Amino acid sequence: MNEGERLTELAKRRGFYFPAAGAYGGAAGFWTYGPQGAALKDNIEDAWRDRFVVQAGHQEISAPDVMPEPVFEASGHLDGFDDMIIECAECGATHRADHLVEDNTDIEEAESLPNEEVMDIIAEHDIECPSCSASLADEPVDNFNLMFETNIGPGTSSPGYLRPETAQGIFVEFPQLAEYARNQLPFGVAQIGKAYRNEISPRKSLVRVREFTQAELEHFVDPEEDEPPLERVADVTLPLYSGESQQADDGGVEHLTVGEAVETGVVTSDWVAYYLGIARDWYERIGVDMDRFRFRQHLPGELAHYASDCWDAEAEIDGDWIEITGFAYRGDYDLKKHAEHSGQDYTVFKQYDEPVTVERPTVDPEMSYLGPEFGGDAQAVAEALERLAETDPDAFESDEVSVEVDGETATVPVEKTGFSVEEITENGEHVTPHVVEPSFGVGRLIYTVLAHAYREDEVDGEARTYLALPPEQAPTTVGVFPLMDRDGLGEYARELAAALRQAGHAVTYDDSGAIGRRYRRQDEIGTPYCVTVDYESLGEPEGDADPADLQADTVTLRERDSTAQKRVPIDGLAETLGRLVDGEVAFDDL
Amino acid sequence: MNEGERLTELAKRRGFYFPAAGAYGGAAGFWTYGPQGAALKDNIEDAWRDRFVVQAGHQEISAPDVMPEPVFEASGHLDGFDDMIIECAECGATHRADHLVEDNTDIEEAESLPNEEVMDIIAEHDIECPSCSASLADEPVDNFNLMFETNIGPGTSSPGYLRPETAQGIFVEFPQLAEYARNQLPFGVAQIGKAYRNEISPRKSLVRVREFTQAELEHFVDPEEDEPPLERVADVTLPLYSGESQQADDGGVEHLTVGEAVETGVVTSDWVAYYLGIARDWYERIGVDMDRFRFRQHLPGELAHYASDCWDAEAEIDGDWIEITGFAYRGDYDLKKHAEHSGQDYTVFKQYDEPVTVERPTVDPEMSYLGPEFGGDAQAVAEALERLAETDPDAFESDEVSVEVDGETATVPVEKTGFSVEEITENGEHVTPHVVEPSFGVGRLIYTVLAHAYREDEVDGEARTYLALPPEQAPTTVGVFPLMDRDGLGEYARELAAALRQAGHAVTYDDSGAIGRRYRRQDEIGTPYCVTVDYESLGEPEGDADPADLQADTVTLRERDSTAQKRVPIDGLAETLGRLVDGEVAFDDL
Repeated sequence: MNEGERLTELAKRRGFYFPAAGAYGGAAGFWTYGPQGAALKDNIEDAWRDRFVVQAGHQEISAPDVMPEPVFEASGHLDGFDDMIIECAECGATHRADHLVEDNTDIEEAESLPNEEVMDIIAEHDIECPSCSASLADEPVDNFNLMFETNIGPGTSSPGYLRPETAQGIFVEFPQLAEYARNQLPFGVAQIGKAYRNEISPRKSLVRVREFTQAELEHFVDPEEDEPPLERVADVTLPLYSGESQQADDGGVEHLTVGEAVETGVVTSDWVAYYLGIARDWYERIGVDMDRFRFRQHLPGELAHYASDCWDAEAEIDGDWIEITGFAYRGDYDLKKHAEHSGQDYTVFKQYDEPVTVERPTVDPEMSYLGPEFGGDAQAVAEALERLAETDPDAFESDEVSVEVDGETATVPVEKTGFSVEEITENGEHVTPHVVEPSFGVGRLIYTVLAHAYREDEVDGEARTYLALPPEQAPTTVGVFPLMDRDGLGEYARELAAALRQAGHAVTYDDSGAIGRRYRRQDEIGTPYCVTVDYESLGEPEGDADPADLQADTVTLRERDSTAQKRVPIDGLAETLGRLVDGEVAFDDL
Repeated sequence: MNEGERLTELAKRRGFYFPAAGAYGGAAGFWTYGPQGAALKDNIEDAWRDRFVVQAGHQEISAPDVMPEPVFEASGHLDGFDDMIIECAECGATHRADHLVEDNTDIEEAESLPNEEVMDIIAEHDIECPSCSASLADEPVDNFNLMFETNIGPGTSSPGYLRPETAQGIFVEFPQLAEYARNQLPFGVAQIGKAYRNEISPRKSLVRVREFTQAELEHFVDPEEDEPPLERVADVTLPLYSGESQQADDGGVEHLTVGEAVETGVVTSDWVAYYLGIARDWYERIGVDMDRFRFRQHLPGELAHYASDCWDAEAEIDGDWIEITGFAYRGDYDLKKHAEHSGQDYTVFKQYDEPVTVERPTVDPEMSYLGPEFGGDAQAVAEALERLAETDPDAFESDEVSVEVDGETATVPVEKTGFSVEEITENGEHVTPHVVEPSFGVGRLIYTVLAHAYREDEVDGEARTYLALPPEQAPTTVGVFPLMDRDGLGEYARELAAALRQAGHAVTYDDSGAIGRRYRRQDEIGTPYCVTVDYESLGEPEGDADPADLQADTVTLRERDSTAQKRVPIDGLAETLGRLVDGEVAFDDL
């Protein structure tokens, strides 16, 4: 079993995630998070919210998943959000044509080739249908839009789509959101929510799915004035796999600090560099293995139409690099598009510190002169004069000015143009903010964190599997066990579990099977601490133990990774656990 | 403006919620939660999770929103989840036919009438199209399925639906979930997530929408053995509006304790009664006004096909009663349906304490006798004998037995039937659990909590609007203001805000405008506490104040509802706020 397979097995057995609706054969690309997975997901989302919303002073919103068609006409998803599809004439199975090419030839990134070329390559290499082995030569390669379509209300007059990214739910509401931010740039709006892509071939468990959770931050900034507080992350070291390195034969990952990356121009956008620094430390906090991690720059051919510089955070699993976050400088693309399509105002009015007086040249041509002179062209001549005044007011300093209308030169005495220069006082200007976007895939983060936490070792001669999850992320913080469920031990342990729960810990109570087996169960779901209540806890010496050694009102506290055990007082146990989870105290120092 | 209208105005202005995609004219029934609304929603969901999952020892999962067709064939939604629709031939607008009848006649609950009858009533009363006033008489009344449909993967061979309730995501995975619960009843599985209903006429802002959030708990219980811990809620008083009261002319709400409600049989299911008690206290905790609240029993005609007893929690707004939660005893309906349609095992194997030996009568008829005797009926006779052995083994104590086959009596000598009684040892039995379901609508809870928190009063001769939200639910816990942003006051206040945020509080920093205006802004979003940093905080006496009165390192703490202010030390401020929020200390006692 490779890393991914053994993880999927563990994930299903222990309740992290499993294919949804399996009783009916399921539907590829849809997964249900079981109790452990849902808790882990909550914890990762909370850690994201803490870092990218609360501590950053940003705001979070929650927009609908179903959005009406005009939103995606504007965003470009209706026309351009396609994958290449090929259908087998023999068995009817559909496949991603570019993936077939990549899997069967040396060609990489077949996605960027035109459909006809992909068709030719398929014919040339006589690529077969992976489902039934029929030849796919001569089958057409089509575009398939990845959005799930539905109808809003009765009939088909109001198409709606499941959003392919949470971002549009923020962009489309910018006018309202800017008002909440009192029109002061910069401000950030985040959203954690579902997104949907009707993938042709979902694969690799949580990696390529049809329904997933995104955590996206759209940071709206004034491109002329706002700069990120780079000094806060200047010393963070980034493993950078630049476009240049990717194209060089012997290129590899360079380790540069954020400061160096900006100075040397490896990362061109200061804002993107800032977020790479913030995110790198956050990945480490949630348990991504920094030795299996890199930031990869998009190659010029790979860049989305809206992005000027884009880096992906990638994690290694089974030798593959999986994109877990995209960092894009989206410029003003999205807001401009929505302004254009909706006719609404997607700008922020930027007040000047002091009103500014500008000179504005205008014309007011005498139509009674232009009419007889130019006939049907008179209006066109007047408009040409207006444009000329804006672009080249100096031309009006002679006695006559000339403009081109329909290839003919029209010459007009300046006195007939009504040329003048007005002085206008402006209090500010309308600015379309630029957008910096870190966009996280929550399912892929979960997959990465679990894969990187997976450990096997041997304890007392027995093989053991455990998840070395950071205590903050673990679905359960503490397992509480009675040595056995009798003589009041069970009752005592249940009360202790309730008290720890009340104190805010994620607690599992378990009294079934041997203690060793209960430890293993918690190890496999990554529970960092277990507490066992025994006779000593109740103040009763066990067997022929020396009563002088008795430690009443204590329990055995066991650490997951080391399997070390210590007796600790029940009094203050909730606080002790809190300090362990927060990293304020080490288990060894207890 | 009525209550709902003025709430919608405040909600939009202050960032609670507003119609989604308004720049494009929006789509009815879809709302975006702004920064305040998303925070309030998070807080209400957390409070629900705390009470109905964590403290209850249940588990939470997260299933996909899009589910394949067989799930809804089994659940009954594909066939039965319809509303009555009528389309205007003149303008093409569609309406809910039953609502038209209710709005234009004295008839209530027109939903329960057959389509033909509704058509007749519309003709009889000559009901007009609300959009264009054309007559709707003679227009057909059809069924319209409320599920949003889409296609999974390319083509239309795999229809999928947006789930109309989160519950099915739990039911369909029962076999897996029972394994996680180690097949021990009772156990509860909860889910907080989106659900979708393609309403014909969305209305009343967050009340009747097309996309909403549900918080549902499915408590799986052994119908023969499991009983709720009624003693924990026996003394909770419930405002009950029973079916009987609803049908009586002078009936009204009765106030009974949970204990009394069970004893008198007003609530027939102990499990439902238990959850009414738990929920009633929870509603109070999150800020539902208990004077505008009741539990209403479903009338027999209103009961869902699966439910044996069902109560709705209802909150009053603008004189209307809005369902905020449904409490249903769903029996084994859902699990049986999924077992039937999927062919999978939706039971739990219940181990007996001791193996049980049962007698099982069987037959093994001599076909060499039956064949010649009954010809083509021989097999039917053999099967009839088998049934008889099961239902009436005593019949085999005579020399002959008689069975009916196709209306004819067949008589067979007992010695030819191979009748015997086997002793079989059984270790347990398969039990299909029953389901108790409290199902909460999160959007309606938000709407109710905001409406019930809305207050107007006068402060210093000026009208004031504020939201008296419980501190635990308020989007922001504390607003931090510098008296003005100069002389280091702003810096001091920003540091204080960061420290309070670090300590886990939801903090807003605001330095713009007069202090009074900043208070009003926080009042309108329900922020329970505000802190102002002034010169005294910095240790500098203001104006001609007596330096002896100087209280350095203190800030002004202001309470929302009373607008009372106190000077409190900055040292320990985070803890003070924590105790105020938790209700451990009152503002007056500071």
